[in-house]
Amino acid sequence: MALWSGRFTENVSEFTQRFGASLPVDKALYAQDIAGSQAHARMLGSAGVIAADDAAAIVGGLDRVKARIEAGDFTFDINDEDIHMSVERALIADIGDAGARLHTGRSRNDQVATDTRLFAKQRCEDLMAANVALRQALVAQAEAHFDVILPGYTHMQHAQPVLFSHHLLAYVWMLTRDFERLAAARAAADASPLGSAALAGTTYPLDRQMTAAELGFSKVIPNSLDAVSDRDFLLDLSYACSVSCMHLSRLCEEIVLWSSSEFAFIELSDAFSTGSSIMPQKKNPDFAELIRGKTGRVVGDLVALLVTMKALPLAYNKDLQEDKEGAIDAAKTLEDCLVCAAGMIETMRVVPEAMLEQAKKGYLAATDVADYLAKKGMPFRRAHEVVGHLVLVCEQRGCDLDDLTLADFKAESDLFEADITASLDLESIVAARTTEGGTGHAAVRAQLALAQEALAADAAALEG
Amino acid sequence: MALWSGRFTENVSEFTQRFGASLPVDKALYAQDIAGSQAHARMLGSAGVIAADDAAAIVGGLDRVKARIEAGDFTFDINDEDIHMSVERALIADIGDAGARLHTGRSRNDQVATDTRLFAKQRCEDLMAANVALRQALVAQAEAHFDVILPGYTHMQHAQPVLFSHHLLAYVWMLTRDFERLAAARAAADASPLGSAALAGTTYPLDRQMTAAELGFSKVIPNSLDAVSDRDFLLDLSYACSVSCMHLSRLCEEIVLWSSSEFAFIELSDAFSTGSSIMPQKKNPDFAELIRGKTGRVVGDLVALLVTMKALPLAYNKDLQEDKEGAIDAAKTLEDCLVCAAGMIETMRVVPEAMLEQAKKGYLAATDVADYLAKKGMPFRRAHEVVGHLVLVCEQRGCDLDDLTLADFKAESDLFEADITASLDLESIVAARTTEGGTGHAAVRAQLALAQEALAADAAALEG
Amino acid sequence: MALWSGRFTENVSEFTQRFGASLPVDKALYAQDIAGSQAHARMLGSAGVIAADDAAAIVGGLDRVKARIEAGDFTFDINDEDIHMSVERALIADIGDAGARLHTGRSRNDQVATDTRLFAKQRCEDLMAANVALRQALVAQAEAHFDVILPGYTHMQHAQPVLFSHHLLAYVWMLTRDFERLAAARAAADASPLGSAALAGTTYPLDRQMTAAELGFSKVIPNSLDAVSDRDFLLDLSYACSVSCMHLSRLCEEIVLWSSSEFAFIELSDAFSTGSSIMPQKKNPDFAELIRGKTGRVVGDLVALLVTMKALPLAYNKDLQEDKEGAIDAAKTLEDCLVCAAGMIETMRVVPEAMLEQAKKGYLAATDVADYLAKKGMPFRRAHEVVGHLVLVCEQRGCDLDDLTLADFKAESDLFEADITASLDLESIVAARTTEGGTGHAAVRAQLALAQEALAADAAALEG
Amino acid sequence: MALWSGRFTENVSEFTQRFGASLPVDKALYAQDIAGSQAHARMLGSAGVIAADDAAAIVGGLDRVKARIEAGDFTFDINDEDIHMSVERALIADIGDAGARLHTGRSRNDQVATDTRLFAKQRCEDLMAANVALRQALVAQAEAHFDVILPGYTHMQHAQPVLFSHHLLAYVWMLTRDFERLAAARAAADASPLGSAALAGTTYPLDRQMTAAELGFSKVIPNSLDAVSDRDFLLDLSYACSVSCMHLSRLCEEIVLWSSSEFAFIELSDAFSTGSSIMPQKKNPDFAELIRGKTGRVVGDLVALLVTMKALPLAYNKDLQEDKEGAIDAAKTLEDCLVCAAGMIETMRVVPEAMLEQAKKGYLAATDVADYLAKKGMPFRRAHEVVGHLVLVCEQRGCDLDDLTLADFKAESDLFEADITASLDLESIVAARTTEGGTGHAAVRAQLALAQEALAADAAALEG
Repeated sequence: MALWSGRFTENVSEFTQRFGASLPVDKALYAQDIAGSQAHARMLGSAGVIAADDAAAIVGGLDRVKARIEAGDFTFDINDEDIHMSVERALIADIGDAGARLHTGRSRNDQVATDTRLFAKQRCEDLMAANVALRQALVAQAEAHFDVILPGYTHMQHAQPVLFSHHLLAYVWMLTRDFERLAAARAAADASPLGSAALAGTTYPLDRQMTAAELGFSKVIPNSLDAVSDRDFLLDLSYACSVSCMHLSRLCEEIVLWSSSEFAFIELSDAFSTGSSIMPQKKNPDFAELIRGKTGRVVGDLVALLVTMKALPLAYNKDLQEDKEGAIDAAKTLEDCLVCAAGMIETMRVVPEAMLEQAKKGYLAATDVADYLAKKGMPFRRAHEVVGHLVLVCEQRGCDLDDLTLADFKAESDLFEADITASLDLESIVAARTTEGGTGHAAVRAQLALAQEALAADAAALEG
Repeated sequence: MALWSGRFTENVSEFTQRFGASLPVDKALYAQDIAGSQAHARMLGSAGVIAADDAAAIVGGLDRVKARIEAGDFTFDINDEDIHMSVERALIADIGDAGARLHTGRSRNDQVATDTRLFAKQRCEDLMAANVALRQALVAQAEAHFDVILPGYTHMQHAQPVLFSHHLLAYVWMLTRDFERLAAARAAADASPLGSAALAGTTYPLDRQMTAAELGFSKVIPNSLDAVSDRDFLLDLSYACSVSCMHLSRLCEEIVLWSSSEFAFIELSDAFSTGSSIMPQKKNPDFAELIRGKTGRVVGDLVALLVTMKALPLAYNKDLQEDKEGAIDAAKTLEDCLVCAAGMIETMRVVPEAMLEQAKKGYLAATDVADYLAKKGMPFRRAHEVVGHLVLVCEQRGCDLDDLTLADFKAESDLFEADITASLDLESIVAARTTEGGTGHAAVRAQLALAQEALAADAAALEG
Repeated sequence: MALWSGRFTENVSEFTQRFGASLPVDKALYAQDIAGSQAHARMLGSAGVIAADDAAAIVGGLDRVKARIEAGDFTFDINDEDIHMSVERALIADIGDAGARLHTGRSRNDQVATDTRLFAKQRCEDLMAANVALRQALVAQAEAHFDVILPGYTHMQHAQPVLFSHHLLAYVWMLTRDFERLAAARAAADASPLGSAALAGTTYPLDRQMTAAELGFSKVIPNSLDAVSDRDFLLDLSYACSVSCMHLSRLCEEIVLWSSSEFAFIELSDAFSTGSSIMPQKKNPDFAELIRGKTGRVVGDLVALLVTMKALPLAYNKDLQEDKEGAIDAAKTLEDCLVCAAGMIETMRVVPEAMLEQAKKGYLAATDVADYLAKKGMPFRRAHEVVGHLVLVCEQRGCDLDDLTLADFKAESDLFEADITASLDLESIVAARTTEGGTGHAAVRAQLALAQEALAADAAALEG
Repeated sequence: MALWSGRFTENVSEFTQRFGASLPVDKALYAQDIAGSQAHARMLGSAGVIAADDAAAIVGGLDRVKARIEAGDFTFDINDEDIHMSVERALIADIGDAGARLHTGRSRNDQVATDTRLFAKQRCEDLMAANVALRQALVAQAEAHFDVILPGYTHMQHAQPVLFSHHLLAYVWMLTRDFERLAAARAAADASPLGSAALAGTTYPLDRQMTAAELGFSKVIPNSLDAVSDRDFLLDLSYACSVSCMHLSRLCEEIVLWSSSEFAFIELSDAFSTGSSIMPQKKNPDFAELIRGKTGRVVGDLVALLVTMKALPLAYNKDLQEDKEGAIDAAKTLEDCLVCAAGMIETMRVVPEAMLEQAKKGYLAATDVADYLAKKGMPFRRAHEVVGHLVLVCEQRGCDLDDLTLADFKAESDLFEADITASLDLESIVAARTTEGGTGHAAVRAQLALAQEALAADAAALEG
């Protein structure tokens, strides 16, 4: 063919074989493919569609194929196109004609949907476990540095003092929501398409409940067309990964900032830092940056699948072959990021004195001084103005609010009394935020208990 | 300033006012803002933070502001920057100093989070209702044309005959999952940030449970930093909208195809078609195309928020102001698309004879002929080859499988008997797919009952 | 109809009218629509397709319609669906039957493509002008603070000292590339679809070159199907906006950091900062955050159009109606961001002493000490190790490299001599980077000249 | 470490090594890395920074490393982290200390930027060649079936007859624009960062023009900070791939439709079709579907990089390590898609009679009948109504426009005469569209010449 003359080294059939093959991607699903085939074979035997002997031979043969794959004693041949044909060909080579009966009442369309759902369920569970581990690391640091005061920021400007533990717990709650999203993705995958055949069901008396139960699916998909063309569960997985990666990008942005010379709030362990090939003094927060950067690929994986699914008519179309690579990548990426973040958090050294030094800058007491006036009856909007003027005085004098005298305060409002000093002390300011969810010590103590409770419940759900 | 000299007609403060203002977007949240402020005021009064009289004055004043807005008797002034200041300024103008006490123990950071969550909850409920309406329309058409036979497709090639009702029900199940995703987004929004103040909580003895209960939130967000910086619930909403729009794009792709001269399976009502300004004969499925096209904007809205959130440090940053416009757009777009799709489906005319005519093309019986052989003991892979050869014979003769004689069949395999004719009749082929979820009449009848059950449960949940 | 009973207040025709209408978006293109129609009318007259009198009446009538729109004396009626019908109806109301001849040999398909291309060209030019203005602001600051030393970062860690002007110029080059991308988008839009009619061309003897020339298009699109279905030029525009917004997000990230208490490298002017409703001391870099956040929506706009275009068959489909809103939004957003960034840069106060103070931290001389050794013959990899050890000594003593004695240096390597001090001085270190593109004063001076040259050329191209 | 106890089989250093390593991705750039190092070494020798012998030893050693890699005689060790260290370690092992001098005046930051730009340039050229090949295939089919009439569509409804060649040429023009975008991406990559060192340039007297020239770069990047942190050229590449893939998704959508039973306009060759594992009669346009589906991953790659780049401060950050995988994937995907599409187009069988049969349906002459009236003086809007009524008459009678008698026509308007028949013949209708870019035979002939001219110019540019 003219096209392949000249510069192309592949011939047409090599090219189409390579381009059309899903094997390089879906061989990762070999265990699921074999489990699905074994369940199908047992059911075919049980339903009398194939002989009991054939069913047994298939199950045994598949065990041997699996053992060979796991022993590295199996050559994947691109000519097999996909994992289904790879496994089936090896089976037939092993047990002969009985192997050729396996595909009865089944199509690659429901087979690949089954494999992918089993795989997705497992990956969700892995991610939920890694999520729990990171939350444990954050909670442990929150407990270890419970009383440490950090300048709280809005707009990256010093706003009000907060407990460092309170700040870490904010991430614990984000991750708690991520766990829920992963659980929802797992639930979305947890329905069996097996028995839907190519698109319409089959004329064999298949027992779909039996295969679903054997494979650990909690239900059967009620529509065969939907069963072979639905990929929502992969979208749900990629979405859950995207949001969780976005959360990690926020945490890692802070880790990078905190590791800078300007902040110096933490020091990462050597295990989670790297040097420079040219600058001998560097200790770079490479892993935090890498996690932050990997948010891109996970969002890209989500977008890819949404684009691929757009405007596809029913039922199966080859476009759907593009479903797995992105979802596999998203899950692997998030898992690595969660594990890495947990390691970083566990091993970082916190520098409370640097946090405190910064917390003393930026008039963090200003809100409390305004509240002081408001509690004495001044409308808050007016109190806000008074304190704005006090801050201006400080800026002109180059001092902080707690350097002002009572006379200075009284010059702005008669409502100020000697007890204003309590509104100027960082410890007192933090402690005074007693409302539920606030940064006051008691409130954070209560919050920590809640977070641990949720953590224990999620960890238990994973075990169960 | 040099920049604004010359070509720019805006001066600096006009520009920054306009560019920084969120009012054009967040004025859509006026009702939520007022409800949140009223709950806050009542709680402040109840907790003794402000006088009971002031609380009452505020609540009454806000009622009047709301009435004016709804009567169109309220001028939104861009100088107010956002809906919060618009409402508060009007309140103070109405009731004086008491109005200035409303903002006690509150920040715009927790205020906007509260407003947005209330808004998101409402929009999710609206979308769930529109979702139910579309499912009802699809179920009604499935019932009305229960027995109609459609050529089922894979790869846009005729594959096997299916019931048209079975095909429509595939979309009902997609939408049933969409309902769950919307419900999850609603649940994500259903937690109160009010009382978190700017980022750290407050020194006022706020009763966060009271405001949460009054506003219909089922719980309080346990961390004030998270409360003001979390936008997951908007991502969840935009994601739910994206997947649902993607599903509609698939339905509309089919509606467009089915409306074409080549398919002619349906005819859209005039109410959901348009003509051409140049071609007098045209009747275009504009609305199906428009829905299909709108998938883009909804996915774009989701991507926009993920990009905006990436790598944002805690707590509130102005970047978050970009959160609402996309989510509002995604929800409005999906609502319109759901409503429009329901109208199209309800009013379309189904042309069973066109479907049947096509179903007769493309050897749709081939699988059943192969199954016939397999049931008589031939391995399926071998049966597949035999039928492949029969199809070739038909193609050479320019006939269909049911035009072949028994002798023709027997020439390929001795297993064929006179009863092969049952495997060649479309009605029989469909009916024979009796497995759960298959396209057999009984199976679809059972499936329809399941779909109606889920629909009734979802509709009831919305009422409750 | 059942659907609209109950909760819906719109009836079917109101709904479809609103949902299908593009008028709320495309009325922004009124000037382009009128210009396109006038060119078409003149050509029809010139070609003898319509009478010269009719052509003149149309041109005059359209002038009056335009004047009314610009005077605010024109009511856009949603029943007109789009700007084309709005204008044409007003024209016919004004001049009668002659107006009805305008649409001869034209379709809304080529009309809307023409309008949109004219609009896109204009927006590209506006953005190129705003791009030039921001580059001018950056260059001016680079000149004004040419000698200021900034700690250069990699991985947000102090790396090597650089000139602040060098750092600012990095953004100038990014923007120079953005200008090229905008120019490419403009060139992509610069071809006339007018005369392609609905999809196939027309039987009227239209002179497409004449209308193209009159409208300022540099060429005619050579294929009528492509002419009505191509939206690449809008993708190019949205892409150019996305990359430029991404660049601005990097600049604004730095502005936010530099404005923080920890860095304090710059102070934004009050005109480009805002306060807090609760914290009286705050001065927030709101506008930098807002620009950074708006990157999301622009990327979202790009994704939206790519999704919409995916898998659309030729030629015009209603999906394409979704093309304009995102591109208009992307262009408006980028324009505002460029203008705002220019204002921020022009008016910011640079704090050289804070930059210098930080530049003294973090062993910024380490690379030069290693180079010192390498120049004396030590392999660089070995020199890197030696200096790594010196840094360790400093860390243990709590001192900096320039606090070490010559003996300290010699303890690590005999190659050190008294002239090592030149490698420890920040000014000398910077000055020594004399290679092309390096941060040495002379090199930056040369670079500045190049940047100004490119700027002048781009500004001149805009004028021309 | 607690984290890694239990379920993790990797220890911390194995994990961080694997997670942080770019080697699995960037080993694809070995040739570029070696070329860059050789140019750097020659320049160092020429500038006297290292001894001429050392330079020669380095160049020779790198030749041997390259030969080993290409012979498959090189073990990539993940402990080397990246291709740079892999190659350098092998070099030092080969030539000793001289090898350690290679990294003088260079950093991995400018090294990786150099490698990636060389790689991107090469990939752009490969894609441009594949683009040309597909255009040749389309042009060849357009020539081979020049006169074939296809029903032209808008809204997937029959609109007007067009030449099939005209339709194919629409894709040629899309691809011509894609070529330009690829050329722009190539130009964006075509500037040398080498000599920028880590971020600031270096104190060695490097000759950046010399290395740029040797590596085939047309210029030197003028700012060292920009040089190490710019990834625009990869965005440009990914964007060019995205748009081109989107174009192919449109073509493939049509190929899928045309291959359906309902259209049957073409038959794909067996080499570009596949069968079904369950349905013996199927011949699926798998490759067209696969190309259509792959649009998703390419758009995902673009989004990924935009997300990663968002809000990154200068200069190099580890996030940038995520830049290559997506761009490599986008380029490989597009290349395969272009090659596959060319093969499909070249080998497809066109079925003119099926196209013609469909072209006879749907009143494709309606526009021309309206034009007929308009040319006789009836305002077009009125003519449009008249023909709309004629179409209605046909629908009621179940006939086509050319079945009507002159009396039927005259019943609607006296302007109709016997010559109306010329407006009813498909060949005449097509031929009458003589305007530039229209579907008339002469116009398409001229267009074909233009397309071939552009093709020849692009092919020549690639050779040059």
